[in-house]
Amino acid sequence: MQATPERLDAETAMRQALALAHQAIGLSDPNPRVGCVIVDEQGRLLGQGHTQAAGQAHAEVMALRDAQALGHDVKGATAYVTLEPCSHHGRTPPCCDALITAQLARVVVACADPNPLVAGQGTARLRAAGIQVDVGLLGDEARELNIGFFSRMQRGRPWVRMKVASSLDGRTALLNGVSQWITGPTARADGHAWRKRAGAVLTGVGTVLEDDPRLDVRLVETPRQPLRVIVDSRLETPPTARILDAPGEVLIYHADHADAGRAKALSDRGATLMAKPGPSGKVDLHALLLDLGARGINELHVEAGHKLNGSFVREGLVDEFLLYLAPKLMGQGRELAAFGPLERMDQVLNLAWHGVDRVGEDLRILARPIAQP
Amino acid sequence: MQATPERLDAETAMRQALALAHQAIGLSDPNPRVGCVIVDEQGRLLGQGHTQAAGQAHAEVMALRDAQALGHDVKGATAYVTLEPCSHHGRTPPCCDALITAQLARVVVACADPNPLVAGQGTARLRAAGIQVDVGLLGDEARELNIGFFSRMQRGRPWVRMKVASSLDGRTALLNGVSQWITGPTARADGHAWRKRAGAVLTGVGTVLEDDPRLDVRLVETPRQPLRVIVDSRLETPPTARILDAPGEVLIYHADHADAGRAKALSDRGATLMAKPGPSGKVDLHALLLDLGARGINELHVEAGHKLNGSFVREGLVDEFLLYLAPKLMGQGRELAAFGPLERMDQVLNLAWHGVDRVGEDLRILARPIAQP
Repeated sequence: MQATPERLDAETAMRQALALAHQAIGLSDPNPRVGCVIVDEQGRLLGQGHTQAAGQAHAEVMALRDAQALGHDVKGATAYVTLEPCSHHGRTPPCCDALITAQLARVVVACADPNPLVAGQGTARLRAAGIQVDVGLLGDEARELNIGFFSRMQRGRPWVRMKVASSLDGRTALLNGVSQWITGPTARADGHAWRKRAGAVLTGVGTVLEDDPRLDVRLVETPRQPLRVIVDSRLETPPTARILDAPGEVLIYHADHADAGRAKALSDRGATLMAKPGPSGKVDLHALLLDLGARGINELHVEAGHKLNGSFVREGLVDEFLLYLAPKLMGQGRELAAFGPLERMDQVLNLAWHGVDRVGEDLRILARPIAQP
Repeated sequence: MQATPERLDAETAMRQALALAHQAIGLSDPNPRVGCVIVDEQGRLLGQGHTQAAGQAHAEVMALRDAQALGHDVKGATAYVTLEPCSHHGRTPPCCDALITAQLARVVVACADPNPLVAGQGTARLRAAGIQVDVGLLGDEARELNIGFFSRMQRGRPWVRMKVASSLDGRTALLNGVSQWITGPTARADGHAWRKRAGAVLTGVGTVLEDDPRLDVRLVETPRQPLRVIVDSRLETPPTARILDAPGEVLIYHADHADAGRAKALSDRGATLMAKPGPSGKVDLHALLLDLGARGINELHVEAGHKLNGSFVREGLVDEFLLYLAPKLMGQGRELAAFGPLERMDQVLNLAWHGVDRVGEDLRILARPIAQP
């Protein structure tokens, strides 16, 4: 039997582009995760690629280079791209120009650019050059993969994902603070995979003082460490904290009037300090998020204690809960998020399930707040 | 095309017998839920049936009667029975004798009688009469369906299933006691289906005083109401409580020295009082379970508040948790079960998942304690 070259239909080609885009997780930040697959008129694969590290080639250029390296002619071909090709000169030339120069006949785009100021400009430019453009194939999947990039482009702040490991009775630690380990090794490794995809991992000084975590990505491979962020109103982070030892940058948000000695000791340890004073001597969490957005953070992974969790919930700043539920009861102990007491059931935070999966011996729940009417 | 009569293979026949046994839920207590399917040598259905109410016909007799009513000869046929046929004279003659008299050739039994004193006697009697007997087909399913009957036969006490509705942060009520409603209508109806299959529904006087529940089965149809049980050490149940109005019996367990006036008022309202004093003026829950076992209760549905739940957990008396998790965060509030504080993670109550399912907008979790080493 002769080997038949695989023919990709439109959905299969876009799914392959999405799979490529997934490979840009932990690599392309602050740029979006984008994949591109180029096929000829018979659906035969000519070239493929995904976004590289910031400042390096985007997905479309990688796919064109791949086709060239394989000796394939892409004239008249179709490109499947998971995000609208860029039309502006950033650190790299616009991808639209590369596709036009290569004389492609058609570009299928999963979803439009989230930036309301540039959305549609890429497709317009391609169409002006006579290329057929279709938008929307697997658009939801493409948007989900870049939910943080969409958040930053549209709201100026990262997508806030709050990670919690708890028992079935909602305990995140025993009353004496002991919490190692509530979940099993598979869930803990999965948690590191979510840290990896975040541009920054945030905790509070309470957790630093009590657990002294590193908060880096260790249990899965990663090309770079996310920024570590500490909410520390009075700069109480000890200069000996392990979070300052782990590779990667540390950013500490404090309120006004930081003690100069403490500030110097932490700066000497390589931490960046940033004042974002809010009411009653606390850090202004909303201002913190805008600052992180300005720094190019797309997804923020919050891994904090019940008090800081409670502040984020109370201020309505959580976009998604990543909850690992362990099959155990712990009795009296620390709560998931300290807020309330509420008076009526119509005041509770209603969520929509986004995913319920077994991860090793534990249950992983993704749930998102439902916009209040 | 001619209609071909359906031929049942062994597993299909036993699954049908199990489906029939399910129809005995809420009907056969304290007898087990048993189904029986009789097929001829070609696998054609001759008759079928399930256990009726106590004192009435068992599954095997119902199936034989069904075959007779349909004009089928069962001589030489095979019976699929979900539980070993009884060999003793109870309120009805032994089923073994009926099968022997009917001259069946073979009996396939899903699982043996759980009562260690009579297990194997039914199969021995059938074999002595020259009937081929095979035991074990779909045995686990058959045992699960009668898990309470097995518990009572083997341990002298009911299977204790603790039902809790909570938010994702483990809250069963707001701090002010408000809890209506945490879960949605589908989960609440599902909860009534679990009440229905229990021989008794148990709560504490705290819940009676605070919520004044009826605790009867209303949201699903049932041929009988389960016994309602109140743990009420000092007989504080108000004679006006709604639980005394609902149809069905009410049994109140109290500790010593019940106030005679209160006792009379509750008896006058139709409640049965039972003293089971334990240490420190509380009801002895272990003695309570043995008493319910002696009363023929196979499955006990515990639907109580955090304090009584905590007592059951602390004393290691819960066999299964039926937990409805609503997609919401409630903040400060009542806990699932008040026990602890524990000092070390190796002291927590470890569970094994037995089922995780979406029920309407909520998540239903079944989990069972793992026997400690």
